[in-house]
Amino acid sequence: MPDAQAFRSQFPVFERLSYLNAGTEGPVPRRAADAVRERVEVEVSHGRCGGSYLEQTMELAARLREAYAGVLGCDQAEVALTGSTTDGVNTVLAGLDLRRGDEIITSDEEHPGLLAPLGRARRRAGVEVKVVPFDEVAEAASRSTRLIACSHVSWVSGRVADVAALRQTGVPVLLDAAQALGAIPVDVKELGCDFYAASGQKWLCGPEGSGCLYVRQDRLDELLVPWPGYSSVADPENALEFQPAEEAKRLDHGFPVGVRSAWALASLELFAEAGWEWIHGRAAALAQWLADRLTELGLEVGPRGRSTLVSWTAGDPPSEVERLAANGFIVRSIPRGLIRSSVGAWSSEEELEGLASLAAGR
Amino acid sequence: MPDAQAFRSQFPVFERLSYLNAGTEGPVPRRAADAVRERVEVEVSHGRCGGSYLEQTMELAARLREAYAGVLGCDQAEVALTGSTTDGVNTVLAGLDLRRGDEIITSDEEHPGLLAPLGRARRRAGVEVKVVPFDEVAEAASRSTRLIACSHVSWVSGRVADVAALRQTGVPVLLDAAQALGAIPVDVKELGCDFYAASGQKWLCGPEGSGCLYVRQDRLDELLVPWPGYSSVADPENALEFQPAEEAKRLDHGFPVGVRSAWALASLELFAEAGWEWIHGRAAALAQWLADRLTELGLEVGPRGRSTLVSWTAGDPPSEVERLAANGFIVRSIPRGLIRSSVGAWSSEEELEGLASLAAGR
Repeated sequence: MPDAQAFRSQFPVFERLSYLNAGTEGPVPRRAADAVRERVEVEVSHGRCGGSYLEQTMELAARLREAYAGVLGCDQAEVALTGSTTDGVNTVLAGLDLRRGDEIITSDEEHPGLLAPLGRARRRAGVEVKVVPFDEVAEAASRSTRLIACSHVSWVSGRVADVAALRQTGVPVLLDAAQALGAIPVDVKELGCDFYAASGQKWLCGPEGSGCLYVRQDRLDELLVPWPGYSSVADPENALEFQPAEEAKRLDHGFPVGVRSAWALASLELFAEAGWEWIHGRAAALAQWLADRLTELGLEVGPRGRSTLVSWTAGDPPSEVERLAANGFIVRSIPRGLIRSSVGAWSSEEELEGLASLAAGR
Repeated sequence: MPDAQAFRSQFPVFERLSYLNAGTEGPVPRRAADAVRERVEVEVSHGRCGGSYLEQTMELAARLREAYAGVLGCDQAEVALTGSTTDGVNTVLAGLDLRRGDEIITSDEEHPGLLAPLGRARRRAGVEVKVVPFDEVAEAASRSTRLIACSHVSWVSGRVADVAALRQTGVPVLLDAAQALGAIPVDVKELGCDFYAASGQKWLCGPEGSGCLYVRQDRLDELLVPWPGYSSVADPENALEFQPAEEAKRLDHGFPVGVRSAWALASLELFAEAGWEWIHGRAAALAQWLADRLTELGLEVGPRGRSTLVSWTAGDPPSEVERLAANGFIVRSIPRGLIRSSVGAWSSEEELEGLASLAAGR
């Protein structure tokens, strides 16, 4: 079992702050900065073409895809490299041949990164979007439902979707995993979802503009590559023919930027070394401890699941966030009058006690 | 007037190589690497949220948009930040409400980054794509033409489109500016095009995954934001309503990654210091000199325009590229049996003479 203090010390930000906002962007391990510096040095000094440059860049992308597949629990052939959870959601919604009258069910705890693409599908394709409470998504499905699109972990409350119930509807399921992948144990095969869109810069501590999308193998051909480029087509010299390249990498979003891959891999390697089981176990336990402690101190913590988010009610969330920040605790405000703390395996018991005391006005 | 040798010395790659492939990815100035290191240090040490982090990130994006607008010759309100020329092309083709039977005219010298999105529009929307010779695009336009979509500078031959003729057709014009912006003088207002999609990593020497799209103000509302996220909508708390945010930034492609902005800006600042007029004048003159010299030495240089690309015929382009690389000259092969050299203001007379001699087998 790793030493919690040693793990935490990999992230320089904790020397300065109680950074508790991985739900927006994760803390960055020192080795990721080192990986970026090394990669940029190659680009600056050796040129970004010729020789083995493209090979190295593609090799980095392949390793990143493999690493994401490991965290998702699927084959690398089912993983597209994206820039965000939103990219993954757009890929699915723009890729499916949605028609007027198709119904998509979503929840009332969704992020704009899911809602904006749904809004577009409604406007462009005439899709009907039905918004229901987070725990009533499964029962809202009917024969006219074309897709369920909701969060695996709610960014508002930290509740966890009952994916088994969603799957039992028989309707294809797209999960927004922005607050799930890296935060809680994930196995997309066990979950049985069809599409799983995740962020790289949050719980995986990768760079801004990173992420991944899982597409179950038998769903791949249902998506008409929605944002094609050089690598989306089997034969770039006949790109107009639009014969798709093989595997989910046809859905890759843009060039597989070397700096992005190097950073994302460095962070993922740190987690692999520490062990995901330890990371998930420790993060969940600390988050639960914080929720209990806040409740004990008289704060109103909403219903949550076994996740890494803890949200509580505050009178004036933005100014409360500022007050906490002035004391070195970085959290964020969330619509519905909430303060949200993101707890990771990198968090310390002491800082959570400090946050709870401060939040309770002690 | 800047000193050519001093300008060249800003790019460390030239200490090692005659790097002549900015048409794929540009050389990287030392100051860009410095800017990346500084930015990553902020992210690692101070955390990627809280305090002024988001403000700084948005400020960098605003400065980058302003800098791109300066190079394009338009207002910042008409510029979207993208990850590539391909992103810009996709934004226009997926944003327009294309219908079955609409005709799009393109040329026979287009890059897969334009052709793949056209292939998708044909497959999904039933658009007809008419491919004609590069210099016959304007005359191919008819009353059923919905859009002209072609290169400003051909990536194959280095020829320059007669944009005045394209504009006179009255049909909306989308230019693929991958080999134009940064390479030749550009003024989108003078060109009179409707959409102008460019790369950041080529002639602007920015990072991989950077670029910009110009959308003429009166065309903006014709594009239904095709890949929406948090910042595309006016009110993120009502993202499902899909009311677009103001200005072309609604079309921004993904989060405005800080590392990307810092790098892109550092390179653009170097060019602004040297002066675009000097850069364009020197690059065009050197490219013309190389074309003349190759011809003089008996090589077959295709018809080209006042651009920075020089292509010539070779028996076996891939192995010729390898032979040149083994001698320290980085160029690339292009379909149609061509070798292409990208000449910049950073190129030296000596290296071009060396390349010409070597290519001619002297």
